Amino acid sequence: MVRGRARSIARRMNAPAADPLIAGAPAADLVRTLTAAGQTVATAESLTAGLVAATIAGVPGASAVLRGGLVVYATDLKHSLGGVSDEVLETEGPVAASTAEQLAVGARTRCGADWGVALTGVAGPDPQDGHAVGTVFLGLAGPKHTEVMRWKLRGERWTIRLEATHIALRELLRCVARPDRGPGGQDGQGE
Amino acid sequence: MVRGRARSIARRMNAPAADPLIAGAPAADLVRTLTAAGQTVATAESLTAGLVAATIAGVPGASAVLRGGLVVYATDLKHSLGGVSDEVLETEGPVAASTAEQLAVGARTRCGADWGVALTGVAGPDPQDGHAVGTVFLGLAGPKHTEVMRWKLRGERWTIRLEATHIALRELLRCVARPDRGPGGQDGQGE
Repeated sequence: MVRGRARSIARRMNAPAADPLIAGAPAADLVRTLTAAGQTVATAESLTAGLVAATIAGVPGASAVLRGGLVVYATDLKHSLGGVSDEVLETEGPVAASTAEQLAVGARTRCGADWGVALTGVAGPDPQDGHAVGTVFLGLAGPKHTEVMRWKLRGERWTIRLEATHIALRELLRCVARPDRGPGGQDGQGE
Repeated sequence: MVRGRARSIARRMNAPAADPLIAGAPAADLVRTLTAAGQTVATAESLTAGLVAATIAGVPGASAVLRGGLVVYATDLKHSLGGVSDEVLETEGPVAASTAEQLAVGARTRCGADWGVALTGVAGPDPQDGHAVGTVFLGLAGPKHTEVMRWKLRGERWTIRLEATHIALRELLRCVARPDRGPGGQDGQGE
């Protein structure tokens, strides 16, 4: 085994010394609310490829609520890891509402969490599978309901991925804070 | 399904408009080298909880080489998702060389990638399982060998997680660029 010491990358490369992911994101609120509720969360991420999980993990104490997650970048992993049915992938594709919803359920069940949150979409720079850059599907699965939302975001690759991460955290926080309410603050099932 | 448009979070919250993860990291070099080699990568992340996968995904064209990954924050997911043996978890714990090595193999095999990269460690603010803050184990698994490295990093939670991410990308790039060489540039197997 090789052992090493490293000089600080933050000092050497002028990288941010403070976590740029949790700045402006409701990650601390989410961790606090989940902790108070005694509940846990897991992720399934394509578009963001780990950003949502990494942002939650940026909060000290996150281990009480973050179970883990699945990065399902390749389409076939959305099935084999994430639990999306072959039928949905064949008929609707990797960037679709049903895919996001099934990924959220897959994250929840495969990681043994109370809540599952999933993101799939197009970060750019090019359109994908007939979807414009900025198309984002967010799936949320909880103890009592699932829902899916579609967003149209603007900006560059990073901005779209960061904004999708913030939206996912915010919408999950809304669900956790009001677990008996359905999408958009109304009772019932999405779409 | 709820549909929405969002104002730019980057503009609204003074969040970074450019990807702060790939700044200073060899992510683009790694994607280019893997693409040229026709090879793929997958991750298993505890300490960084998705940062390595998300950093690779920040590079346009990453979908040619990034298969996906596993966020194995909870200890039991290191076994059930990541493939670490119960024996290793019981005797060495979640923060250990053998755990990192088995996670790298697990990432590679479970995601169907040529290379697996894994990180487990202590980001702080508190020590964990008898390990000081900044203790990081990096596992690398490839077509011809596996290796594990231990690092002692300094700094805050974010700095440690970011630096571990950079180290993982750099060491993976070294392996991919010289696939017949073992750890530390020498032929053979890591300790």
